[in-house]
Formats: sequence, structure tokens, C-alpha cells
Amino acid sequence: VRVVVPYAATRPKTRLDALLDVAERRDLAAAMCRDVVAAVRAAGGDPELLSTAPTDVADVPVTVDDRPLTPAVNDVLPADEDDDGVAVVMADLALATPDALVRLFEAAGDVVAAPGRGGGTNALVVRHPDFRVDYHGASIRDHRRIAREAGLDYREVDSMRLATDVDEPSDLAELLLHGDGEAADWLREAGFGLAVDDGRVGVRRD
Amino acid sequence: VRVVVPYAATRPKTRLDALLDVAERRDLAAAMCRDVVAAVRAAGGDPELLSTAPTDVADVPVTVDDRPLTPAVNDVLPADEDDDGVAVVMADLALATPDALVRLFEAAGDVVAAPGRGGGTNALVVRHPDFRVDYHGASIRDHRRIAREAGLDYREVDSMRLATDVDEPSDLAELLLHGDGEAADWLREAGFGLAVDDGRVGVRRD
Repeated sequence: VRVVVPYAATRPKTRLDALLDVAERRDLAAAMCRDVVAAVRAAGGDPELLSTAPTDVADVPVTVDDRPLTPAVNDVLPADEDDDGVAVVMADLALATPDALVRLFEAAGDVVAAPGRGGGTNALVVRHPDFRVDYHGASIRDHRRIAREAGLDYREVDSMRLATDVDEPSDLAELLLHGDGEAADWLREAGFGLAVDDGRVGVRRD
Repeated sequence: VRVVVPYAATRPKTRLDALLDVAERRDLAAAMCRDVVAAVRAAGGDPELLSTAPTDVADVPVTVDDRPLTPAVNDVLPADEDDDGVAVVMADLALATPDALVRLFEAAGDVVAAPGRGGGTNALVVRHPDFRVDYHGASIRDHRRIAREAGLDYREVDSMRLATDVDEPSDLAELLLHGDGEAADWLREAGFGLAVDDGRVGVRRD
């Protein structure tokens, strides 16, 4: 399956700016992207980047499109019934495993979505030309509606690993707890560890 | 499979106290518990409550144990090799689906865990007497270690629905986005809706 990985090559991960400076955020985003590319390959997918700017972050084909995410992704989706399905997997799913991606790629349906924490849509498989994305706001809700209004067979994949996009400080704790790729290593080498007290764990930096 | 559902009958969900008063928190906790019991039954499990106090919140057998969670749960786990396996499923997994629970119950392994957001262990299947729980702190990390040190076959189930325990205000957004049971209905009837802006959605109350 063709797997398009949207990548914000400039100013990534601004919601982590209390913990990481701009160069660090770029390094972490690049490491996460390589983890995603590796997991996609291990799941049998053919990854390519859809980047906001030229990048050599990973050894894959790159299409540059500096428009917002929604029109950029819509341009890579199937345009007519003869087109093959396309998967769209976000570049910050640093916990994505081959198993989780296989479940996504192999699920039946015209549209298969992996919801993200907080209403996002972290990954999609689109096999029908009548579906279009809208990443603004609570996109998973919008994608359900768009699929329903088009009369499409819409499914969701239930995966904690695909639900965990790394956007906010609490997500770094998830990366430390469950990650074993380059991004988790980068974070540990940057001095981050778990901060454990009552309730959910957070992160601290030495 | 025998499924023990630990239930805090008194003072539940204190981390929601900015949004819900004590009676409301109790109502929501009860609704979530009934959703979990219904999902367990639909998945073919035999639910029973392990409650901190007598309760008739759900039509299931109740064992009262007012000790902390860790010793109370350890007392229901298999004591020797002839004992059947036991599942432990938290009462606040209001997004749990029968499908997700079937994946948990049917996974191979001496110990199968469903990690929760922030390092918790939201659900477990224990089939070996050498495993004991420790819910303090980042329990999923401790449970991995305890299983490894005992030489057990330890697995994890990758489920967003089992990872989502409802403890904090942001979890209410997950319930509104993905829930279709009594707890989600209760929340909507209490006036909660999604608050959508940039980034992850939150909740507002009318």
C-alpha cells in the first residue's frame, strides 16, 4: 500500500516549546518521522513524505507541498474509482508498531481511520474517491460525518499506539514508557525521564 | 473468564472535582462501571465487582475489600497453578468495547496487560501464580519488570479504548468523542460538549 507521511519540515512541534528549543524539536520530529517510516516499511507499506519543504530526513521519495495539511493530503487521495487506496500516516506517531499498521492497512472498508488523542485523525486508509479529509478541529468527528454523508463504509482501528501522536509534554511520557525507536532514544539522551508521583506520570529533564 | 472489576464506591474520581461535584462524580463513576460490566458480558466474560464498600451499582456479585487496590487485587489472582486465569478490568474504562476485551481475553501469555494513559495498567489477564500487581506509580513499567523477573510470558494489548481510563478533564473529551454508553449519555445530559479550537479538543459545560 502507498503510505503518505505528512511532515512539517519547518517549525515542528511548537506545543513542546516549554521543554525543547527549536533545534531540539526539529531533531525529535526527524527521529519520530524515521521511526514511522521504519514501522511502515516493516508493515509492508511503501512510505513517501509529503513535506512542507525539501528534506532528506528519511531515505524515501519526497513531495513538497507548502499548503496546509488538508488540501495537501486531499491532493494525494484517490481521484477516481480505478485509483489504488492510499494510507496517510502522521509523522509523529513514534509509538507506531508494524502490528498496529498492519491492522490499519488490512482493515476492510472504504475509509479506515485511527483516532488520535483529543479528536485527531492520526492515520487513514482511503479507498474511495468520494472521501476527502478535513483536519481542522475535531477531525475524527468530521471524518465520520464526511464518510457517512458520502454513503461510504467507514471503520476505525482501535490502537493506543496509533492514537498517540507526540504533540504535548504528556505525550513525551508515553514515548518514554512505550517507545523503543530512535525518538525514544533521542529523548532519553536529551536527559528526559519519567516523573512518577500519584496519578499519571509526567516527564522531567535532568 | 472470571473478570474482576475494582470499584471505588466512595469518593471516586477526585481529579474531576473542578468540573463535577461529589454526587455527580459518583453518578458518572457508576455509569462507567455499568458500561464496563455490559462490555465484559458482551465479550463473554463473567463480571464481578471488587468494591471498597457495599454497592448495588450493577447487577453482579460484589466482594467488599476496603484495602488499597494492590493488596485487594492480589488476593483475587491465581494462587497456584491449578487456578483458572483471572482478568482485572478497571471500572472507569468507559470506552471499552466487546471487541477490545475479546482481544485482551484471547491474547496468549501468562500475563496480558492493557496499558493506560500515563503509565497505568488498565486491564490485565493473569494466568500464572507467580505474578502479583503493584498499582503504585508507573504500574505498567512495574508489571513488565515483575513478569520478567518471574520468567513469565508477558504480552500487551494495543487498544486506545482500553488505554482510556476516565480520570482527568481531558478524558471527558474522549468519552464525548468515542463513547456510546450510559456514561457518555450522562455527560451529555449534564451539559458537557466538546470545546474545539486548535490542537486537542477539550470539554465545556453549558
